Amino acid sequence: MKKAIVLLSGGMDSAVTLYMARETHECHALIFDYGQKAAKEVLFAQKIAEEAGCAYYMMNISLPWQGSSLLDDERKVSMRPAAGDGKIPDTYVPARNMLFLGYGVSYAEAIGAEAVFIGAQQLDFSGYPDCRDDFFSAFQKAVLLGTKKGRKEGGIRIITPIINKTKKEIVQEGRRLNVPLEHTWSCYLGGESPCGECESCRLRIKAFEEAV
Amino acid sequence: MKKAIVLLSGGMDSAVTLYMARETHECHALIFDYGQKAAKEVLFAQKIAEEAGCAYYMMNISLPWQGSSLLDDERKVSMRPAAGDGKIPDTYVPARNMLFLGYGVSYAEAIGAEAVFIGAQQLDFSGYPDCRDDFFSAFQKAVLLGTKKGRKEGGIRIITPIINKTKKEIVQEGRRLNVPLEHTWSCYLGGESPCGECESCRLRIKAFEEAV
Repeated sequence: MKKAIVLLSGGMDSAVTLYMARETHECHALIFDYGQKAAKEVLFAQKIAEEAGCAYYMMNISLPWQGSSLLDDERKVSMRPAAGDGKIPDTYVPARNMLFLGYGVSYAEAIGAEAVFIGAQQLDFSGYPDCRDDFFSAFQKAVLLGTKKGRKEGGIRIITPIINKTKKEIVQEGRRLNVPLEHTWSCYLGGESPCGECESCRLRIKAFEEAV
Repeated sequence: MKKAIVLLSGGMDSAVTLYMARETHECHALIFDYGQKAAKEVLFAQKIAEEAGCAYYMMNISLPWQGSSLLDDERKVSMRPAAGDGKIPDTYVPARNMLFLGYGVSYAEAIGAEAVFIGAQQLDFSGYPDCRDDFFSAFQKAVLLGTKKGRKEGGIRIITPIINKTKKEIVQEGRRLNVPLEHTWSCYLGGESPCGECESCRLRIKAFEEAV
């Protein structure tokens, strides 16, 4: 089996992505502590990797700058409606996926993996610019030009298997693959139990309601 | 003055890049300890930033994987001829510039900087895929698609001011701008004094010889 890197956040989307990747690849996960308020999500990610029998690294990459309500102590996470209004949510973290992908590509090249899987999806939650398909296509080109192997030599692929799935379809896919969805964490706040009101909680609840 | 991020390594190229950037921008530097054998280069970088009166962050991003003779204890840095043979040197670090740029773009977005300067050059040392102009062009596209501001809104620019300069021209530019070149460090090995034999040392010595 060919190797792949899977970026794992502790949330539902990346857990389902890991189980999809496992069908075709030997998976190596990367989990990031980037100073997010929901620090506990990395523990969920760790558990998911272990349950999937997947090797992983915990990466501590805390950013010393601010710029997101998920990072800044003084800024509250807005409980605003999900996407669709064209604005970028305050929970957007500057260049987060670019950084995660950079680590993923570095790891892939170091161990000879052929792909980096990332569980971004652009349908229910289109407010983040770094979750859009056109960003990943552009980044893919940069990867093929900036690493050892270009397109012809079978360079590293960026794979976004759920990019055009709805949250409902992601839950359904997760059930099909027996993903332990109960061990994923979506809430932005990281309290003892999910707040049920932040955008991420609401999208998750809606997804489970629709996927019955 | 508009703000810019400058990626600073302790070497000659990035020091000259910083002084070029200073002519037009308020500069904020990023210095990376990524586990390189020449650990002392970060101290040189720090000194350069201080002499330039430039704010900076030291980023510890040690990579837990191997994959370069600059990182791996068991691999020796080859004293091979400089570039030109089409092979990628063993000193190539997987996706290093991708990672550095990712941090630079994140920092830029967080503080509202309009550009990220990187002192890559592709002429004397064309062996690294992530030092080529076409990689930076592709990455630029990804940045405009993956961050808040696209091209029309004046998104973050990736600026490579010395990409097509020879090492000789970089030394000359450094002298013109009074860059303290004596406080830069190029040697890959990080011994007490430069080894004088690694590729980086030889290119530096040649540059100073030619730039008289």
